Amino acid sequence: MLSLYSDEYFMKEALKEAKQAFQKDEVPVGAVIVFNNIVIARAHNLTEALTDVTAHAEMQAFTAAANTLGNKFLQECTLYVTLEPCTMCAGASYWTQIGKIVFGASDPKRGYKNLSPNSIHPKTEILSGIMEKECSDLLKLFFEQKR
Amino acid sequence: MLSLYSDEYFMKEALKEAKQAFQKDEVPVGAVIVFNNIVIARAHNLTEALTDVTAHAEMQAFTAAANTLGNKFLQECTLYVTLEPCTMCAGASYWTQIGKIVFGASDPKRGYKNLSPNSIHPKTEILSGIMEKECSDLLKLFFEQKR
Repeated sequence: MLSLYSDEYFMKEALKEAKQAFQKDEVPVGAVIVFNNIVIARAHNLTEALTDVTAHAEMQAFTAAANTLGNKFLQECTLYVTLEPCTMCAGASYWTQIGKIVFGASDPKRGYKNLSPNSIHPKTEILSGIMEKECSDLLKLFFEQKR
Repeated sequence: MLSLYSDEYFMKEALKEAKQAFQKDEVPVGAVIVFNNIVIARAHNLTEALTDVTAHAEMQAFTAAANTLGNKFLQECTLYVTLEPCTMCAGASYWTQIGKIVFGASDPKRGYKNLSPNSIHPKTEILSGIMEKECSDLLKLFFEQKR
């Protein structure tokens, strides 16, 4: 059973978002932002639909969470995202000072860990590999269909 | 005389945007994006007004330029921005594949050059120091007034 308020519980919410992206023929990445165990923002990649490279799931989620809280800083929040953030999203997370980032699949090619390891705020805790297989399987399926 | 279509000409347009940010009590950074010698997007920092750390001048300009062109890739475009892009904006520029970035003032603390030198697309040409004094003087004045 999936216990409430676990990392897996919230990652499953992010995965629901990723599946929505998949259905729209977008690279399937989803994100939610959690504050006091409540999902205050949810988003999925919309770069194709919006013709906008900045419309990554995380970017939209940061904007929505700040709007919900009326505060551009997210120190008390956790971002759950199905794929390791890219440099842009990691750089945005720095400005939000977000408390914690939990991601599923790693992205050795465009993820921040290899490309810009100093882009995360020093106070942001990082947890990776939560539901990694489910998150990466969805991405693999998407790219296999594109071949 | 300011010749048409020079880097100084377009940086002056970016500086006009930065001055608008200054008047709104925002960190004064401005940007324009140029395609075929035409300004197709202009923006200034609005992080305070929008309560959104992602509302940097460059991010808004990328979104606006893609919207104008109907294309999320900006290979034929040049970004003029008064301050060296941060990691978020440099990471966004990677996804746009923008042809050229021209910036005014350097930002040794939060600029991409020190923090994430690999965040720029390998095909993006970089030119720095255009109207550096005017760009940095405006920023200095802003932060002096904040003390």
